[in-house]
Amino acid sequence: MTKLKWGMIGGGEGSQIGPAHRLGAQADGLFEFTAGALDHRADVGKEYAQRLGIASDRAYGSWQEMLEGEKNRDDRIDLVTVATPNATHFEITKAFLEAGFNVLCEKPMTMSVEEGEDIVRVAEKTSKICAVNYCYSAYPMVRQARAMVQAGEIGKVRLVVTNFSHGHHGDAGDADNPRVRWRYDPSMAGVSGQFADCGIHAMHMASFICNDEVETLSADFASTISSRELEDDAMVNFRMTGGTVGRLWTSSVAIGRQHGFEIQAFGETGGLRWHAEQPNQLIYTPVGGRTQIIEKGEGGLHDDAVRLSRVAIAHPEGFPLAVANIYCDLASAIGGAKRPELPSAADGVRSMAAVHTAVASAKADGEWMDARPPMFR
Amino acid sequence: MTKLKWGMIGGGEGSQIGPAHRLGAQADGLFEFTAGALDHRADVGKEYAQRLGIASDRAYGSWQEMLEGEKNRDDRIDLVTVATPNATHFEITKAFLEAGFNVLCEKPMTMSVEEGEDIVRVAEKTSKICAVNYCYSAYPMVRQARAMVQAGEIGKVRLVVTNFSHGHHGDAGDADNPRVRWRYDPSMAGVSGQFADCGIHAMHMASFICNDEVETLSADFASTISSRELEDDAMVNFRMTGGTVGRLWTSSVAIGRQHGFEIQAFGETGGLRWHAEQPNQLIYTPVGGRTQIIEKGEGGLHDDAVRLSRVAIAHPEGFPLAVANIYCDLASAIGGAKRPELPSAADGVRSMAAVHTAVASAKADGEWMDARPPMFR
Amino acid sequence: MTKLKWGMIGGGEGSQIGPAHRLGAQADGLFEFTAGALDHRADVGKEYAQRLGIASDRAYGSWQEMLEGEKNRDDRIDLVTVATPNATHFEITKAFLEAGFNVLCEKPMTMSVEEGEDIVRVAEKTSKICAVNYCYSAYPMVRQARAMVQAGEIGKVRLVVTNFSHGHHGDAGDADNPRVRWRYDPSMAGVSGQFADCGIHAMHMASFICNDEVETLSADFASTISSRELEDDAMVNFRMTGGTVGRLWTSSVAIGRQHGFEIQAFGETGGLRWHAEQPNQLIYTPVGGRTQIIEKGEGGLHDDAVRLSRVAIAHPEGFPLAVANIYCDLASAIGGAKRPELPSAADGVRSMAAVHTAVASAKADGEWMDARPPMFR
Amino acid sequence: MTKLKWGMIGGGEGSQIGPAHRLGAQADGLFEFTAGALDHRADVGKEYAQRLGIASDRAYGSWQEMLEGEKNRDDRIDLVTVATPNATHFEITKAFLEAGFNVLCEKPMTMSVEEGEDIVRVAEKTSKICAVNYCYSAYPMVRQARAMVQAGEIGKVRLVVTNFSHGHHGDAGDADNPRVRWRYDPSMAGVSGQFADCGIHAMHMASFICNDEVETLSADFASTISSRELEDDAMVNFRMTGGTVGRLWTSSVAIGRQHGFEIQAFGETGGLRWHAEQPNQLIYTPVGGRTQIIEKGEGGLHDDAVRLSRVAIAHPEGFPLAVANIYCDLASAIGGAKRPELPSAADGVRSMAAVHTAVASAKADGEWMDARPPMFR
Repeated sequence: MTKLKWGMIGGGEGSQIGPAHRLGAQADGLFEFTAGALDHRADVGKEYAQRLGIASDRAYGSWQEMLEGEKNRDDRIDLVTVATPNATHFEITKAFLEAGFNVLCEKPMTMSVEEGEDIVRVAEKTSKICAVNYCYSAYPMVRQARAMVQAGEIGKVRLVVTNFSHGHHGDAGDADNPRVRWRYDPSMAGVSGQFADCGIHAMHMASFICNDEVETLSADFASTISSRELEDDAMVNFRMTGGTVGRLWTSSVAIGRQHGFEIQAFGETGGLRWHAEQPNQLIYTPVGGRTQIIEKGEGGLHDDAVRLSRVAIAHPEGFPLAVANIYCDLASAIGGAKRPELPSAADGVRSMAAVHTAVASAKADGEWMDARPPMFR
Repeated sequence: MTKLKWGMIGGGEGSQIGPAHRLGAQADGLFEFTAGALDHRADVGKEYAQRLGIASDRAYGSWQEMLEGEKNRDDRIDLVTVATPNATHFEITKAFLEAGFNVLCEKPMTMSVEEGEDIVRVAEKTSKICAVNYCYSAYPMVRQARAMVQAGEIGKVRLVVTNFSHGHHGDAGDADNPRVRWRYDPSMAGVSGQFADCGIHAMHMASFICNDEVETLSADFASTISSRELEDDAMVNFRMTGGTVGRLWTSSVAIGRQHGFEIQAFGETGGLRWHAEQPNQLIYTPVGGRTQIIEKGEGGLHDDAVRLSRVAIAHPEGFPLAVANIYCDLASAIGGAKRPELPSAADGVRSMAAVHTAVASAKADGEWMDARPPMFR
Repeated sequence: MTKLKWGMIGGGEGSQIGPAHRLGAQADGLFEFTAGALDHRADVGKEYAQRLGIASDRAYGSWQEMLEGEKNRDDRIDLVTVATPNATHFEITKAFLEAGFNVLCEKPMTMSVEEGEDIVRVAEKTSKICAVNYCYSAYPMVRQARAMVQAGEIGKVRLVVTNFSHGHHGDAGDADNPRVRWRYDPSMAGVSGQFADCGIHAMHMASFICNDEVETLSADFASTISSRELEDDAMVNFRMTGGTVGRLWTSSVAIGRQHGFEIQAFGETGGLRWHAEQPNQLIYTPVGGRTQIIEKGEGGLHDDAVRLSRVAIAHPEGFPLAVANIYCDLASAIGGAKRPELPSAADGVRSMAAVHTAVASAKADGEWMDARPPMFR
Repeated sequence: MTKLKWGMIGGGEGSQIGPAHRLGAQADGLFEFTAGALDHRADVGKEYAQRLGIASDRAYGSWQEMLEGEKNRDDRIDLVTVATPNATHFEITKAFLEAGFNVLCEKPMTMSVEEGEDIVRVAEKTSKICAVNYCYSAYPMVRQARAMVQAGEIGKVRLVVTNFSHGHHGDAGDADNPRVRWRYDPSMAGVSGQFADCGIHAMHMASFICNDEVETLSADFASTISSRELEDDAMVNFRMTGGTVGRLWTSSVAIGRQHGFEIQAFGETGGLRWHAEQPNQLIYTPVGGRTQIIEKGEGGLHDDAVRLSRVAIAHPEGFPLAVANIYCDLASAIGGAKRPELPSAADGVRSMAAVHTAVASAKADGEWMDARPPMFR
């Protein structure tokens, strides 16, 4: 088993996201960390890359340099991860796809819907993989939930209710902290704050588990800390193509919630519940029956849940290994397997469309609007 | 300590609500069950009342008979509970108030806003107590939550998030069961299904804990079981007079949720969380600090939480004793004490206004509307 | 339905136990509080009894006076509750039984095994009911657990593990508080501290759910606060007559545990788990299957669990209503029904034998000893 | 940062333990998988090693071959993990230590106390690291618990209560399954079944968190499935050198418990609670105060808890990364740092002494015995 070659752009020293990707890519021994442009300061990035074991000729000073360097090698990287500031995702992702690289892009994939559609088309044209890191979808018990829905085990889904709420931006005294403030400043974060940051994880999850897409939505946004221009709390009601009713709440001022990402799907014959702080259990209730706890690792789970679990029943596997599961799927897809569960550029552009639609709806006092990217209408 | 005299209208044999009130009224030895018109079938009601120990001359065949009988006695009842079908609450409550009785009315107090305003005026005019049985507000730890908010312990409340969702009407095959069907039939239930049934408990709770009132709202209703004319799932966004943002979800098709009534209040300096299935704990998180579990019965609680608890710390007290707490407050108020926490006719009419506004908003695609009764605008 | 007449000895003003019994006896309208000798100070007790609504001629100054007064009345009380200091239970219970009264005695029923055997014989001879207030056994879901075991739903029970541990006596600085100190002082508490106080609830529960009796035991006692003569922490291993292995831990210095009373029964084909802080759920796992949550009030429960529940599924019923369930069973037994689940004098003497055996075993470095009262060997 | 070179003995294809170690060693990019003797079938092991990316000259057919091959290389491995059947741990570990390799040995380190003492002496003599994989001790919140105890934050520990119980061997029909049966067969498992398998994790944890050692113990063993020669359920009471009272329960027939490993430490001024199924939270209660939830990743944690956490607050990190933390500590110790938290050969021999003492005590009806290895008396 030769390891695949992997490179990363962004994720420099001190970032949260860099270690998560390095661990995710390397945990299962599937990828070798081969190339990197890790910092916008060329020297800093090169030095850090070499400290992490990258050869000096593949420790690059910028993504452009890396693109040039890699595209002309016979042993070019098999996958590049884009973990740069949000506003740069589009340009870098597009350039690498066009040069024939597979890409894993951090969310949000782009800032606008148009850019997103552009990426979808480029990915199609080049037949390269363009994945977006909706890593929560790669938890084994989330895969189990999706597989159960697809197998009809809860019947047609009538209602999906999800929330992704935390309280880590709830301190008004800390609102000027640069690590917090930029998220609510349109010049840096774009049109949306909390919904674009956390809400789209929840919205992707709803689509992922229901195997359906958001068609229309109505939003209510609030800036509960008044100095914020963008929303720190949002409620989005939606309808999916198949008729499922959706409810999504996201907040960053919900003091006391830590990593409050939860999804509940209610179908004709059963209900499911999953929470990101207790990710190894899936709660299932058949209609008229008792609530059951489905454990990661138990017998009889669906294939995808089995495949993406490493240790025995009830031994918890956490967030970093959900990221690792994205890399497992990528390795598998690079090897030619079909991995329809892998979050794609289409998912990325749908998120962008949802963000822009929610912003518009909130401004229009909750008017219901078509939330699909034009290309998918 | 002479017991107060108590009578009930409705709550006949086989009802859920009758035993809950009898237990609530008698648990603490404050009331004696003295009179009753327990069934719309005169004979049945009289016979049952006597079996429950009521003297034959105060076992009545109808509420009208009871009104006549009681109002002319020197030893007339001190309190009457109205636990009849919803559509009759207004007429009976009004009649007893006008005759000078104190009334505890089951929710909803009335079917229309106008009727509700009428009750408020009659109660004021007669100076009689008219309470509405929002019994969840009488759990000790809900009183603690309200007292903490009033004392400023979480700062100004930015956001209140509540839901009251269960799955007990989630079986479409059971939808024709008469005990389920009427709730979704406008000829019996009025303008609203699940929101009027459970949602108004949650909305009252939001007002109760925040000590504030709903000013405007926007609603999204769904009949996820298509044979239902009225909604079985609803989302209501609202704003309170003081600016607090509100989010309320209620559902009866959330299979797997049993008694899913929860409220979270997020303020400037802390967050609170309470769940009706674990009512003896209140979860509190100071901003920037650790989540703490406040236990019913611990030292240092606010007065109202102490007063309404009967047994030592961590010995659970459940739903029937929350109802009993309403009767404790009633006994106290009848005795002349001020009990501003006791849910009042004003609360009852506010609920009705919220119901009618939510129905109208949902029909108008979520338009934001004034949710206050005209008399309180 | 005429109410039964009920009297209480002890449980005066300010006691914890008095209100619990008054609520338990009156909650369901089955008993009328008719007579009482509530305080060892005659005047105080009489005055308080009358304030609680007892007629002056049945407000007694002592239990002896009450015995004399009641036994000569035609309308004598149907049941007397003995809620006096532990050392007096034997004498009072015996006297009332011999005079032909039914008795509910607080635990411990006696201080010695010999006294316990005496009570058993008197109760048999007089054919009167002598119940002991192991009220946890009257929670609906505990009754469900017992019924499941009896129905063979978890197979033969291999292992029962129970603990009743709290931390409310964990503050050494508070150890001299008179309300705490007496429990560890042999001149007041007898031979055992925490095991006699809480442990015997757990041991009764093990017998109750397994429908079997403790045969032998080995104990390890510790006084973790060194000023205490009696144990504040104890571990008891035991074997039941049918071969079930038992493990019982009880502590009063387990800081952070509030009302930590839990029981787990593991059989050949399944396991059960119940916790007194979440008493409305019973956790059940069939061997090789998924854990299920059995809810009080759900369909298909065993008769006894249905009979002793008052409100709908998932509406919590707490500790005071478990006490009320003991009174329901008493009313039923007084009416002539067989109530084998009602904790009896035999249970009372078995507890005493367990206490004395555990004390002896702990002194003998954990030697295994016969734990049965001589009369049951 | 050059990666350290790592080899493994055992952990072949299809084993549970192999992937756990490979992930643990590689997750953080600290070790390179350089050499291996992965299977007792030479060809199979060599082939598998190469498939995992090991060079053909370092894919060995046996541990002896690997020892010869590696000890003569200049670029010899920095660390070898011994993950072979239990009975072979001693021989292999000793041989590699004597040849100057650092070793991580799976538990149990040896089968006898004498062998364990031998290892301790060899490790001392060679000044090589000999660690034992008590990986639960490397969860960040377990490190936090230990650090809190060492800092005196709960005062002197009066009582430690731990259990490690599951139900995965509870099916008697499955008892002949070879993967289950060997654990209860003395010819394969040695003197103890469940206590040696899981109990010693719990006992190590008690020592680890209390920073103290078990001095004496008394055991009660049971084979609840009668075909088993060794125990499937055990209770061990113990006393630590500093006087702490200990209680340890371990079972493999506790149907419904999945990964039921829990520890509670109760001190003079507070209590702590940690559970392996929810490893990212530590529950803390100050005496007389409210229970608090300490979250992995929150501000103000002790150094060791900070160092061994990779992702933000409330993002769960599970079992494989606890193993990875052992490798982090090993890399650090190989680099010369002091890592007193790393489980050592001394811990390994103490476990063996506890196992043999518990077996002897159980045979002697629970007699209290000295549980220390002779070398540490």
